[in-house]
Amino acid sequence: MYDITKRRTIRKYAEREVSSELLNSLLLRAEQTQTMGNLQLYSVVVNRSKEMKHRLAPAHFCQPMVEQAPVVLTFCADYNRTTEWCNQRKAHPGYDNFLSFLNAATDALLYCQTFCHLAEEAGLGLCFLGTTIYNAQQIIDTLQLPKLVMPVATITLGWPDEDAPLSDRLPLDAVVHEETYQPYTPQSIDRLYSPKEALEENKHFVEINGMETLAQVFTDIRYKGDDCRAMSATFLDALRNQGFLD
Amino acid sequence: MYDITKRRTIRKYAEREVSSELLNSLLLRAEQTQTMGNLQLYSVVVNRSKEMKHRLAPAHFCQPMVEQAPVVLTFCADYNRTTEWCNQRKAHPGYDNFLSFLNAATDALLYCQTFCHLAEEAGLGLCFLGTTIYNAQQIIDTLQLPKLVMPVATITLGWPDEDAPLSDRLPLDAVVHEETYQPYTPQSIDRLYSPKEALEENKHFVEINGMETLAQVFTDIRYKGDDCRAMSATFLDALRNQGFLD
Repeated sequence: MYDITKRRTIRKYAEREVSSELLNSLLLRAEQTQTMGNLQLYSVVVNRSKEMKHRLAPAHFCQPMVEQAPVVLTFCADYNRTTEWCNQRKAHPGYDNFLSFLNAATDALLYCQTFCHLAEEAGLGLCFLGTTIYNAQQIIDTLQLPKLVMPVATITLGWPDEDAPLSDRLPLDAVVHEETYQPYTPQSIDRLYSPKEALEENKHFVEINGMETLAQVFTDIRYKGDDCRAMSATFLDALRNQGFLD
Repeated sequence: MYDITKRRTIRKYAEREVSSELLNSLLLRAEQTQTMGNLQLYSVVVNRSKEMKHRLAPAHFCQPMVEQAPVVLTFCADYNRTTEWCNQRKAHPGYDNFLSFLNAATDALLYCQTFCHLAEEAGLGLCFLGTTIYNAQQIIDTLQLPKLVMPVATITLGWPDEDAPLSDRLPLDAVVHEETYQPYTPQSIDRLYSPKEALEENKHFVEINGMETLAQVFTDIRYKGDDCRAMSATFLDALRNQGFLD
């Protein structure tokens, strides 16, 4: 039986097809996820062709799993379909705004995560690519997404061909607050993060990156403030182009 | 065994406690969800006290399940904890921007959905409240959320005390696109939406709302454009107050 406490991200896939029957049955079952007003404000683009995966790869910084995975799924916040339906039914939709983007992005991410859970239960392995929102415009162009459709998540999917290590996680009291948000203190930060920092793999990670602390690997190498600020601007431009911002 | 095709939203809960042991074990197992750079950019505030649920209710338009449910969970995009950690480790975080909000919101929503799936597997019932992003500032004030923490989802949780009907869903080809986004046509919209429109409960829904079409119930009553635009502005203000927008 599937045990979520053993789940791990899979970046290497066997040379074995993921059948359309299986994929579609998972995508269909995931549709039972809660959705705003039962509008299902999402779409998913399925890429299997070598050519399309090759064209998508640069948007994901050419991470090898995009071309290696048998299936790449791009989950999109989608108010286009609903808007088309309204226009055809004497209704006057007004979903060209930021709140509507957030509603649709929420629907898309919840749907995506149910799909991930079901896929992993079925024995498939996957990797969630955070790069989708870093290079949204490239993905919009490649997948020909119309106005009111924004990519929010990408999954590479296949049968696992690696025995990936389990990632550590923070203790539960790092993320749970009773009744109101309890501010962190220097002491609680030390207590919550020290076990993570003491792990051999994390010490090694700090060393190969030439840093003094684990936190510096994130702030100085992986997710630099300047990069985040620049990508905020390009994401907001893409959101405006797609009609979700005035 | 749990069958997701039978899942339904539960708004009425039995007078029976959800034990802390069960809740914590579900929240802990959900931590295995993928997360950006393993940073776990989320927090969850657990409300059980009558007083706090009463204070939260207005932000959710006083929907009765907020006060009736034994547990209310508010999932938050959280860059505060990570920023505190960085500051204490000679690192210089730069996560006061929109992209970082989206990264954290993504983490929070994926975590939330894994939790929902595990809770439903365990026999609990829940309702996802879309109102969280409509009145974010009220929730921020009530739960005392600091800068770089934004509420993105609320779940009311308990043991089911109703036999809620199953919601219809669109056929799979309404939401799946092969290789590139396939534009909808008047014919495909008719084909995809007619079965939904023909359901007795939806016809009744149109009638009691005094509308001509189902789509009009959404555009003219439930999710009006003017309301969405007004709430976009208040959400963006709250996001700015929380330090996620310049």
